[in-house]
Amino acid sequence: MNPQQLLLAIPAAGVLALIYAAVTSFWIKGRDPGNERMKSIGAQIQRGAMAFLRAEYTVLAIFVAVVAVGLFLLNRNEATSDPMVALSFVLGAVASATAGFFGMRVATLANVRTAAAARTGLPPALQIAFRGGAVMGMSVVGLALLGMGSLFFLYVNKFGVDLNALDTAAESFKFGKVINVLAGFSMGASSIALFARVGGGIYTKAADVGADLVGKVEAGIPEDHFLNPATIADNVGDNVGDVAGMGADLFESYVGSIIGAMILGAIATQGAFEAAFLPLILAAVGIVVSILGTFVVRTKEGGNPQLALDAGAFGAAGVMLVLSYFIIDMFVESAGGAIKFSEFADGLTTLHLFYPMVVGLVAGVLIGLVTGYYCSKGKKPVNSIVEQSKTGPATNLIAGIGVGFESTAIPIVLIVAAIYIANLYAGIYGVALAALGMLSTTGIQLAVDAYGPISDNAGGIAEMSGLPSEVRERTDNLDAVGNTTAAIGKGFAIASAALAALSLFAAYRKLALGNTDIVLTDPEVLIGLLVGGMLPFLFSAMAMKAVGDAAMDMIEEVRRQFKDIPVLREALTLVAKAEEEDRDLTPEEDAKVQAAGKKTEVEKCVAISTQASIRRMVLPGLLAIVAPLVVGFWSAHALGGLLAGTLASGVMLAIFMSNAGGAWDNAKKQVEDQKKDMEANTGKGSERHKAAVIGDTVGDPFKDTAGPSLNILIKLMTIVAVVIAPHINPNKIEAPPAADAVEQKADDGEKADGNKTDGKKDEAKADTAKKAG
Amino acid sequence: MNPQQLLLAIPAAGVLALIYAAVTSFWIKGRDPGNERMKSIGAQIQRGAMAFLRAEYTVLAIFVAVVAVGLFLLNRNEATSDPMVALSFVLGAVASATAGFFGMRVATLANVRTAAAARTGLPPALQIAFRGGAVMGMSVVGLALLGMGSLFFLYVNKFGVDLNALDTAAESFKFGKVINVLAGFSMGASSIALFARVGGGIYTKAADVGADLVGKVEAGIPEDHFLNPATIADNVGDNVGDVAGMGADLFESYVGSIIGAMILGAIATQGAFEAAFLPLILAAVGIVVSILGTFVVRTKEGGNPQLALDAGAFGAAGVMLVLSYFIIDMFVESAGGAIKFSEFADGLTTLHLFYPMVVGLVAGVLIGLVTGYYCSKGKKPVNSIVEQSKTGPATNLIAGIGVGFESTAIPIVLIVAAIYIANLYAGIYGVALAALGMLSTTGIQLAVDAYGPISDNAGGIAEMSGLPSEVRERTDNLDAVGNTTAAIGKGFAIASAALAALSLFAAYRKLALGNTDIVLTDPEVLIGLLVGGMLPFLFSAMAMKAVGDAAMDMIEEVRRQFKDIPVLREALTLVAKAEEEDRDLTPEEDAKVQAAGKKTEVEKCVAISTQASIRRMVLPGLLAIVAPLVVGFWSAHALGGLLAGTLASGVMLAIFMSNAGGAWDNAKKQVEDQKKDMEANTGKGSERHKAAVIGDTVGDPFKDTAGPSLNILIKLMTIVAVVIAPHINPNKIEAPPAADAVEQKADDGEKADGNKTDGKKDEAKADTAKKAG
Repeated sequence: MNPQQLLLAIPAAGVLALIYAAVTSFWIKGRDPGNERMKSIGAQIQRGAMAFLRAEYTVLAIFVAVVAVGLFLLNRNEATSDPMVALSFVLGAVASATAGFFGMRVATLANVRTAAAARTGLPPALQIAFRGGAVMGMSVVGLALLGMGSLFFLYVNKFGVDLNALDTAAESFKFGKVINVLAGFSMGASSIALFARVGGGIYTKAADVGADLVGKVEAGIPEDHFLNPATIADNVGDNVGDVAGMGADLFESYVGSIIGAMILGAIATQGAFEAAFLPLILAAVGIVVSILGTFVVRTKEGGNPQLALDAGAFGAAGVMLVLSYFIIDMFVESAGGAIKFSEFADGLTTLHLFYPMVVGLVAGVLIGLVTGYYCSKGKKPVNSIVEQSKTGPATNLIAGIGVGFESTAIPIVLIVAAIYIANLYAGIYGVALAALGMLSTTGIQLAVDAYGPISDNAGGIAEMSGLPSEVRERTDNLDAVGNTTAAIGKGFAIASAALAALSLFAAYRKLALGNTDIVLTDPEVLIGLLVGGMLPFLFSAMAMKAVGDAAMDMIEEVRRQFKDIPVLREALTLVAKAEEEDRDLTPEEDAKVQAAGKKTEVEKCVAISTQASIRRMVLPGLLAIVAPLVVGFWSAHALGGLLAGTLASGVMLAIFMSNAGGAWDNAKKQVEDQKKDMEANTGKGSERHKAAVIGDTVGDPFKDTAGPSLNILIKLMTIVAVVIAPHINPNKIEAPPAADAVEQKADDGEKADGNKTDGKKDEAKADTAKKAG
Repeated sequence: MNPQQLLLAIPAAGVLALIYAAVTSFWIKGRDPGNERMKSIGAQIQRGAMAFLRAEYTVLAIFVAVVAVGLFLLNRNEATSDPMVALSFVLGAVASATAGFFGMRVATLANVRTAAAARTGLPPALQIAFRGGAVMGMSVVGLALLGMGSLFFLYVNKFGVDLNALDTAAESFKFGKVINVLAGFSMGASSIALFARVGGGIYTKAADVGADLVGKVEAGIPEDHFLNPATIADNVGDNVGDVAGMGADLFESYVGSIIGAMILGAIATQGAFEAAFLPLILAAVGIVVSILGTFVVRTKEGGNPQLALDAGAFGAAGVMLVLSYFIIDMFVESAGGAIKFSEFADGLTTLHLFYPMVVGLVAGVLIGLVTGYYCSKGKKPVNSIVEQSKTGPATNLIAGIGVGFESTAIPIVLIVAAIYIANLYAGIYGVALAALGMLSTTGIQLAVDAYGPISDNAGGIAEMSGLPSEVRERTDNLDAVGNTTAAIGKGFAIASAALAALSLFAAYRKLALGNTDIVLTDPEVLIGLLVGGMLPFLFSAMAMKAVGDAAMDMIEEVRRQFKDIPVLREALTLVAKAEEEDRDLTPEEDAKVQAAGKKTEVEKCVAISTQASIRRMVLPGLLAIVAPLVVGFWSAHALGGLLAGTLASGVMLAIFMSNAGGAWDNAKKQVEDQKKDMEANTGKGSERHKAAVIGDTVGDPFKDTAGPSLNILIKLMTIVAVVIAPHINPNKIEAPPAADAVEQKADDGEKADGNKTDGKKDEAKADTAKKAG
């Protein structure tokens, strides 16, 4: 196997994905965007979404520039790293932002076209919605692999690594440096992801909470009604939060898992290039499989769209699993029948590497099913919330929090089982492979995920433009489908975050402390542990408070419009009355309502959400970057504790918030499905329904702002730790004598044995600060 | 210094506290219990409370018996432990239960007498309420020291320890065994505490939520109105949750901190008895100081009761601090100017031991002030909740959760600062002393804490028995006072739990693994860490769900009575109308209402709360005991990770829940203090008020059920780990050759050097299972 050729296959796969995305987006652009009213609404949503991204990227550009300069300066004189890490960081950030921008642009084209297509039937609408999602999915994996692959190629050549001689100390040292510099790409991606998730999450929930509370609860008009000025902002929010935010999130997971596995592969395999390359190659093949999978997603009139989506996603995952076996086998053969590995005397065989991937995939699917169980209508947890809503919002909330807390248990048991088995077969490198097992078909996974908000938006547009009710039914049908796949995607996100964080954590320990252990009873570690345990709470507090404040601004604004615009006030009464009496508007009522709809001041609501979210995303984002920096430069051991503490409380908080939010959401929907009966306190408009709406509203920032951001927080903190690891190592790793540091003193030489240092406890942190090169 | 004499001083101090408690309770019994109606209500509350305790103790007796038999069997053939640990366990449980029983009995005498005394003035009412609390306080510390002191004396003599020759391996080994057997007392106390907190917490909140939601919100009658059949259950709940539950809680903290410090003292001081004795002696002196402090708490008519309470509690703490210095100095002198200590070459001097105590006390006070800030009316956090309540329950809840999350930050920073400094001066033993610094005056602290629910109950009784409004004002005044002290007590509870858990954790590591480290990147440790991080969430889920279910039963029952009892329905309308119009009832209305009050079926509500709480406390209680057992017998390293994970997420969750609950509570009160104005949406009866009541209701199980139970959970799991440590040690500690195990083989002997083993990593866990003696 020629490693140089393999190197080029990786960006090639990225390019392939981007071509697919470009072709598909042209196809979408060519579809019918519907009537004038629809076009106008679609344009409003797109304008709002793009305005948000522009504002967000302006702030992020400053942030990226500052951090890049910092990274450049920090790494000027570092033997084990290089100022090029700043380039990696910038490219990681730019690639993530580009994927978000492109994906969202296409999503905002696809939503209105999905609504338009739904006028004629389900299959064409499904096609547009799914392909819109696929553009996002392929943009993400394409830019990720193109970026990582190109940088890898660049660095291998720049540092002059001889990939066929990695078993020598000199080449191994250079190769370690390549991987370390490459980690900057992951840090860039994670930074953007965190800001995008937090900012997008604040945006979408402020708009959603505001729209729902005043519109549905107070005025009694249907969701997404065009009389509600916050509805456009709500739809914009679906795009910036659920499409762009989720895209950046998965970009980050994808890159983080791959780079985590590469670092561990480079560290643990004692100089063989195979283990470090394997993750990239698996990802490249995963792109091809994902693209093929998208062609499976099609249905006939009257067919079941659920089956189509499942066939695409699960089919791709299954094919990928089989291919993985052969790819691994090829690599193992190339390494002479077993890959040399530090913890395993006989090296790693094909099955050693394959089983962890299977275990990861199985654990991810099972966690997804458990997540689905806790959040699905008709299942015990949601039923219990519906039941407790009978006695009002307080019992609804207590029940939902209980469900969310409880839902942490089984996923954690599954995650630790995966860790246990993966570790048995291939040590901590196996844990990294388990994460990769879930994420290799991210391309199509993300397509299915992004399909959801596009369909949701299509429904909103259908409602706002007053399309016939069967159109709305079709879009609702589209929206309802894919929940299983989405739940499993959620399971993958949680499990892969935990596993990737663990593997990056192990990488950090190696890079920052060599063979010195992080000992749990060391007071510095305990201090780190407690502070780390606290950070997810503080971070969530910032996110929740931001949503609360922004939502209140939105509520005030909607109320003001409802009060101050007389025609609007009158129209609201008409709609609410018709809704109450369960009938359609009379033609003359409808005319009045239509006229009033033109008086709403939509752009004010959009501006409120944009400003609030941009301003409020900065502090929590900085927390994630500054905390590991400060703690790490105090004590590398404490930073180890910090990461462990953040993992221990952050994963739980993330699962809790996501699932409680999901369960409240479906409890509300389940109440809405009930027969309307005031005596039995069931159905829309009942006290039970009001309670369920309040629970759903509280759950919104849980599941769409704080919860998913926590996954990123955990990984961003870990990747920051990995990037700064060479600088805080109390037993500095020196370049080996054969490296270009010719003037090196003899006594430094004895310490340098490739990537490893002796396991001495750092008694004398001060006296080891000498540098080589 | 003669250690044998010191040994006897400890139970003597316990007896002194019990004499004080007995004399005071006779004094309280002799006060006027008020008119017939008051006596009848007081008797109802007392009957309900005692019925609950009987039911609870019946279940616990079975639990204690089973665990005791298990401990006996497990320790039959153990060199480093003894079957007597079962005796310690039973006595710890019995002592805690007895303190709870006695304290609550007196509290239920004191509440009605406080109400009666409030008819004449504030000072006599304060006296009765405070002394009622003092009985609880002194019962707790008295029984704790009497139990621990007597057992210590017994074991030292039974095992024939020569306290003046602890520097020999044989005596040191026996002494270690004494302390290990004594740890059973702490486990017994913690078990009872957990069940009492959880059971009491479910009881009180089910009743409270039920009473408030139906009475205040739905029927519009005042809190604690006698027409509400759940009101008696609510008052019973205050006693079983806030008095008995809190008593058991502090009993556990007190014992746990002392025993944690003793274990570390015995381990770390290399055979000197001083460090292991010091905690007990400090506690004994603390009792005397606390008793003296109670005499300071008195006020004149028109005086400020707040000052009286503060003078007692802070005065005692201050005096205790000064005395501590001299006691430590005495011990250090007795050890020859410095106590020998493993990590400090020159040993520990007086200041080495004194500073950690000061640091602990200061951190505890500061955490209390921060807690007070987050939960107090008029401060920014509560103001923000009040502000957000304007837009309804959803924003109120989001704001409250945000405040709770945020409130974890500063306390954690203060705790880690305390750990850092304490560790600097005296290693992990210093951390244990810091916990002790907070808890040495538990006697008077608890008196102030228990004073709160007694005054609260007195107010309820005044309301229910229709006493003039100035009486209720006086009891409200009493109830409002002491919040600062109570907040500081809360700060002490949180900080001491974290510090005590850390010191017990360090003790576990020594006992279970000798000098082997618990390494954070070890996959077994990571598995433990994740599972440990999850347990507090699962535990809280169980507690929350229990409250939710029980509250719903209660709500249904109250609604049923309001609907099915015609005179009651009519009376409710009259009261609600008068309340709405802000006037008193007319005499004829009052007669009707009084008559209706006799028709309420109070006992049904009491029965619902009792049954639900007893049934529902079992599962979460068992979780805390079974989890460390299962994990520990799989891997001692994983158990270390488990404890760390529980600490990292449990402390945060505890602070979050306590403070969110407290902030919601006071936000509601602040809204009630506002001017009633429907237009501005302020004051009682406004939409804002309804939102604030819902927030308060959600916060109730946070702050009174799950939150405080978590502190106990963390410590109970750790003490269970300490007790089972000898049995799961992969490098078994053997008795030294000089011990009575005469047939021991020579190759065992080389491992035994007092309490220590070599720091070998346990590569071969299986082959080290041989036992000595």
